Amino acid sequence: MILDKVTSPADLKKIPADKLPELAQEIRTALINKTSSFGGHLGSNLGVVELTIALHYVFDSPKDKIVFDVSHQCYVHKILTGRKAAYLDEKLYRSVTGYTNPKESIHDQFNVGHTSTSISLACGLAKGRNICNRKEKIIAVIGDAALDGGEAFEALNSAVEICGGLIVVVNDNDMSIPENHGALCAHLAELRKNEGKCANNFFKVLGFDYYFVKDGHNIGDLIETFNKVKDITCPVVVHCVTKKGKGYSFAENNPEKWHWAHPFDIGTGEFHKSTSVPKENYGSIVGQYLMQKIKNDPTVVAMTASVPAYIGFNVQRRKEAVSQYVDVGIAEANGVTMAAAIAKSGGKPVFVTGSSFYQRAYDQIEQEMCINRCAATMLVAFSGINGHDSDAHAGLYDIALLGNIPGLIYLAPSNKQEYLAMLDWSIEQNESPVAIRIPWNGVYYTDKPVPQEYSKTKYMVRKSGAQVAILGLGSFYQLAEQVAELINKELHIEPTLIDPMFITGVDKQLLEDLKHDHKLIVTLEDGIVSGGFGARISQFYGIDDMKVINCGFHTEVPTQFTVEEMMEKNGLMPEQILQRVKDVLSVDEASEEKK
Amino acid sequence: MILDKVTSPADLKKIPADKLPELAQEIRTALINKTSSFGGHLGSNLGVVELTIALHYVFDSPKDKIVFDVSHQCYVHKILTGRKAAYLDEKLYRSVTGYTNPKESIHDQFNVGHTSTSISLACGLAKGRNICNRKEKIIAVIGDAALDGGEAFEALNSAVEICGGLIVVVNDNDMSIPENHGALCAHLAELRKNEGKCANNFFKVLGFDYYFVKDGHNIGDLIETFNKVKDITCPVVVHCVTKKGKGYSFAENNPEKWHWAHPFDIGTGEFHKSTSVPKENYGSIVGQYLMQKIKNDPTVVAMTASVPAYIGFNVQRRKEAVSQYVDVGIAEANGVTMAAAIAKSGGKPVFVTGSSFYQRAYDQIEQEMCINRCAATMLVAFSGINGHDSDAHAGLYDIALLGNIPGLIYLAPSNKQEYLAMLDWSIEQNESPVAIRIPWNGVYYTDKPVPQEYSKTKYMVRKSGAQVAILGLGSFYQLAEQVAELINKELHIEPTLIDPMFITGVDKQLLEDLKHDHKLIVTLEDGIVSGGFGARISQFYGIDDMKVINCGFHTEVPTQFTVEEMMEKNGLMPEQILQRVKDVLSVDEASEEKK
Repeated sequence: MILDKVTSPADLKKIPADKLPELAQEIRTALINKTSSFGGHLGSNLGVVELTIALHYVFDSPKDKIVFDVSHQCYVHKILTGRKAAYLDEKLYRSVTGYTNPKESIHDQFNVGHTSTSISLACGLAKGRNICNRKEKIIAVIGDAALDGGEAFEALNSAVEICGGLIVVVNDNDMSIPENHGALCAHLAELRKNEGKCANNFFKVLGFDYYFVKDGHNIGDLIETFNKVKDITCPVVVHCVTKKGKGYSFAENNPEKWHWAHPFDIGTGEFHKSTSVPKENYGSIVGQYLMQKIKNDPTVVAMTASVPAYIGFNVQRRKEAVSQYVDVGIAEANGVTMAAAIAKSGGKPVFVTGSSFYQRAYDQIEQEMCINRCAATMLVAFSGINGHDSDAHAGLYDIALLGNIPGLIYLAPSNKQEYLAMLDWSIEQNESPVAIRIPWNGVYYTDKPVPQEYSKTKYMVRKSGAQVAILGLGSFYQLAEQVAELINKELHIEPTLIDPMFITGVDKQLLEDLKHDHKLIVTLEDGIVSGGFGARISQFYGIDDMKVINCGFHTEVPTQFTVEEMMEKNGLMPEQILQRVKDVLSVDEASEEKK
Repeated sequence: MILDKVTSPADLKKIPADKLPELAQEIRTALINKTSSFGGHLGSNLGVVELTIALHYVFDSPKDKIVFDVSHQCYVHKILTGRKAAYLDEKLYRSVTGYTNPKESIHDQFNVGHTSTSISLACGLAKGRNICNRKEKIIAVIGDAALDGGEAFEALNSAVEICGGLIVVVNDNDMSIPENHGALCAHLAELRKNEGKCANNFFKVLGFDYYFVKDGHNIGDLIETFNKVKDITCPVVVHCVTKKGKGYSFAENNPEKWHWAHPFDIGTGEFHKSTSVPKENYGSIVGQYLMQKIKNDPTVVAMTASVPAYIGFNVQRRKEAVSQYVDVGIAEANGVTMAAAIAKSGGKPVFVTGSSFYQRAYDQIEQEMCINRCAATMLVAFSGINGHDSDAHAGLYDIALLGNIPGLIYLAPSNKQEYLAMLDWSIEQNESPVAIRIPWNGVYYTDKPVPQEYSKTKYMVRKSGAQVAILGLGSFYQLAEQVAELINKELHIEPTLIDPMFITGVDKQLLEDLKHDHKLIVTLEDGIVSGGFGARISQFYGIDDMKVINCGFHTEVPTQFTVEEMMEKNGLMPEQILQRVKDVLSVDEASEEKK
């Protein structure tokens, strides 16, 4: 194998150019092999095999710095920069993360995971280079869909004035996670059609030099172009046309399915059943529900920032919904603001994106949505410790982030019946912006009645007890059940078990009532403790004798983790919580005896 | 006066077109008169007198909906929509806010105050119109500088696909708050030079129809153009060239000074001394300090998102700093990300924007800055209750927003010596991202030594006492002093007085020590109580006997307010806090006696 000889970019440069296509083939095989048993972002990586080889052939990493946008397409880069074993040797599959990671290699500039930041980062690196009087090249690699995010534009707009030499490689595969949306995507299509020659050119408008590579899988062309732009001292865009999934026919033909591949059979292209999404999941449940709503009411609009799967909007549903489905591109701020205005204008918008992506729309939620009391619905996917296993996508911040915004009702259902009741109430009400945290720990059910109205913060007591009350929020309600059972068994106390359902506000009446026959409150939340749900309960009892234990996450989130690791490290295993309860109760008893 | 006859847009339509310039003159006089004694956004409003008249002459508000970006330029709109008395009658000056406000008038669509949202909002209104099967026109009015904000681009990118008919009026006065920056501003200059005729056209790239009005003060031309575009069914941009400050020579000649005018003498154009910024303020202090740093160290970079005044970077300092001053435009996400990368690349960036504008960069702070531990400095201006008197700019959220981000050190100095020591330490250290909350309650001093190092959360005890400890954070430290004095006087207790200095983290050792001889902690913070600094203190003492009172803001922020009103409503007057302390202590004594 040629790949045997490549353990660094320096080695790569020794390979004769005419052997590089063979190397590309070897890398492609490695990518398909690893993801077939391990899962991963297959489509985007197959699309940048040649591009990445050419970059490392021409530029001199780590002196020259390559910043990958989102960096889900960095597998080839990792293979070429000393980490090929993680793609060739099954035992080492876990030795690298799925994103760039400076702790892994000096060839990785940043730990990233969100879209549209690479050009800003590259501008900053270039500015830093200039003031420190160095000369390295700075390259940002960004997909066409990531250009929809406003920050990419902000950086393109800044570059000419601030950065000097800067190379932006646009990896144009004409795809987002689902199909592409927006005017820029149409403009790129025009550029592709005319092989880069349009009078009107987005990048030139913003002061960039512009180069076009019509076949982004032709290594020779790529190398030639990169050599041309390598030494220029102004910002330049190299627009490369690539194919998502290139070289694996199943992925080429259905790039949405193969954006993130579950482990699969290479021959048939079928995802292994055991590892793919379970049949009963909130995507499909809500997809069905929303389609019904859409058919019955022309003012209901399902909206997303390129993640329709979270509400089960597969290709067929998107087609059926026609103009009642809106994908704003990976542009969360625009999505939230537009949803606010649709609500104001008489529509019933339901917007969905992931927990960590709402971070990009805090301002719009606080200002456009809440100050203006626009009665839109926001669904928060990917939330809690089960949401994602990397720090750059962790779903642990949304409770603290959104839960303290005045005027927002933020709900945390703990089962299917609550989720659907909340969603239906939210869509039909006209008073308040509402966010609903989709439980990401699986689909649970209740046979008890659930409220049909959620305008006032009112917790639900699922089991009345004494001494200890456990408030298990949303996806941690099931944990609360386990803890209650354990306390009962070990301490012979029947704790009160509460499903708070509301992240925002506090149920003052209930908390007051608990004072009568409880001395300890345990709050459980699937998010950071600092600034979270439990903090409000602690504040409420600030001058009372009630003891309060807030359970949640308090350690820093590692780059990669498993759910169990994190639960244990944060003292969230039922036995660990039991121990904390025991400690408080025994101290308490001791001090009672003393008196 | 012609204006006498105009109490609604319907009245306006009855004025013969040739009389409109006279009306414009009357409005201009009203604007200058009111702001000369009341203060306000004079420059931008003088610039849109004719534009606003023409809009209301052609369109049919409130059926047709006009969305003003930021809406600081809505004074003329208010005058024409039934609120002229608020600009003509001194007694009624306070009867309107400085921004659009649906509670004031059905002609105002949204309560806004942040930049770059109008096109998203207009897209949403247009989408709502379409699904509700109505036919009204939707118009967004946006300044050239606001186009730098990524959300404006996101919305322009979405419009063609999602909105149908939509009119975006670009009010191009070639100014931001200071001078304009970025490639788009150069492109607009090109369009102005060529009277709208460039082969390359940013708006056409994004699928918009494009019209150019070379004299945005010619009402006839404006009316003619608006009539042309009024019924078209696709998105269209009307690019109008206007002059900020038009018609008042002082404002025309120095548009930065007159962006927001303090009360002034109309004849001389001098701001009245008593009402303008005091000589000793943190702008000038930090400006001087930073210029010195810049001269001594080529890697220090002062950065802003178009608000250089917060660090005292007047025209002269900006010029002197040359490439060590960076203005990214009103594009906070880009600013924060670029600062992160500059730090990574060996530079020492100091970025500044307002408290409520950091809301637009939470994601970038959490991800690019903190996960990557980029040792940049962020200064948070406009913070606390003194920061701004409107809900859409309130500086009350940043403690809860930034204070819970893992990996960030967020500092709250309470006096000049602390502020400068923190800033200097932050610039020179290389370990951690740091934010510093500029105290907005005036410049205070201490003659005690202040720490020179802030890597670990360590509160400062300024006065040791017993029973009650008061933690007065940042700009509320002076309030804590008052409360301490009052407690001493009234209750004959000498409270411990603490200057926490750190918003993030807790000083566990100190809080533990307080348990020995204190039974009540009072936290004071100049921000919302929910998710804030005090919440962490309450959490810390969750299972202890210590009582904790968290003082801060808990009511919704009104559209307009005075500091006193808000302090009183939130129980933050020293006497009110004293009363809360008394209540706890007496309850406590009563229960002690009972035992």
